[in-house]
Amino acid sequence: MPKIVKHEERKQQIAKAMWRVILEKGMEGATVRNIAEEAGLSLGALRHYFSNQDDLLVYAMTLVQERATERIVSVVQQDLPPKEKVMAVLLEIVPVNEETLAEMEVWFAFMAYVKHRRDELDVPNDGIFEGVQKVMTFLSASGLMQDGLDLDLETERLYALIDGIAIHALFEKDRLDANRIKRTIRYHIDSICK
Amino acid sequence: MPKIVKHEERKQQIAKAMWRVILEKGMEGATVRNIAEEAGLSLGALRHYFSNQDDLLVYAMTLVQERATERIVSVVQQDLPPKEKVMAVLLEIVPVNEETLAEMEVWFAFMAYVKHRRDELDVPNDGIFEGVQKVMTFLSASGLMQDGLDLDLETERLYALIDGIAIHALFEKDRLDANRIKRTIRYHIDSICK
Repeated sequence: MPKIVKHEERKQQIAKAMWRVILEKGMEGATVRNIAEEAGLSLGALRHYFSNQDDLLVYAMTLVQERATERIVSVVQQDLPPKEKVMAVLLEIVPVNEETLAEMEVWFAFMAYVKHRRDELDVPNDGIFEGVQKVMTFLSASGLMQDGLDLDLETERLYALIDGIAIHALFEKDRLDANRIKRTIRYHIDSICK
Repeated sequence: MPKIVKHEERKQQIAKAMWRVILEKGMEGATVRNIAEEAGLSLGALRHYFSNQDDLLVYAMTLVQERATERIVSVVQQDLPPKEKVMAVLLEIVPVNEETLAEMEVWFAFMAYVKHRRDELDVPNDGIFEGVQKVMTFLSASGLMQDGLDLDLETERLYALIDGIAIHALFEKDRLDANRIKRTIRYHIDSICK
């Protein structure tokens, strides 16, 4: 395997070890020492890939974001009727299975941790606002959207709805299961379509 | 002043010191030592009121929740037309000024911190779902709501919208100011009313 690929692979392994530590112990447990142990590496070996905790944090956040983006791009390329494509994209943003729930939990922990340090850290944007803008533009161009709607406020509304559902999926798993999430999003999309 | 009032007042002072520490340093900086220093107390004096950090954490979270509830109750008692009352209640839930933004930030930090410890800690429910249920029941009973809506899914939708806006208000202050928050919520309420 080329050395650069191997290097990148090892970085991903370490980032995933960080996710697991966060899921189990929260951000306050995500010390470089704990992450190295979870990854099965010495502290020195970990420092070969990430010189400090911030580097690792930004890398691990970016990886969550990239994985979500990859899933969405793959859905967008599917041959689906416009409304079903919109539903499929939105259901990649909100967590509806164990894997995406874990990603959401890690992302939430990251966001809370970096909240008071945003000026110092180069934190990746989650890209959801831009994604929702594209969804609304696509829906509008497809001719399915009801006449007379305010596209700007509809975008803001869908963006809030999606992130609100994502938060609730994380904290109210028992009440808001995947089926109820799908029904709520479909109800909303139906309400703005002809 | 009666001793019990004085005791409660001091507990509130300490909880507010905890909020300030969280706003400045995040949860990982909210050690008992830092909180005592911010409150101008010795560690021993703080321990007189809270035997450990968890006691203080639960108290401080409950206090945020109680303050929000008090504001909402006060709005509910105002003599306003039904739709304006609904708007006023919802605008107490989402952060539209410095004070409520700070409360939201503290609440967000709390939630991320306790996420992986919910079984151990007696964390207060924020009560927003129940509040939104009441708002929707009130709107429905007022006869203002459009016919044929699904009250259950409308409640889920408004609940997600409100919490999504609250999160965005916190992380995207520049893009989503108080005016845009109000316009978005009014747009939604208008869309479900006759």
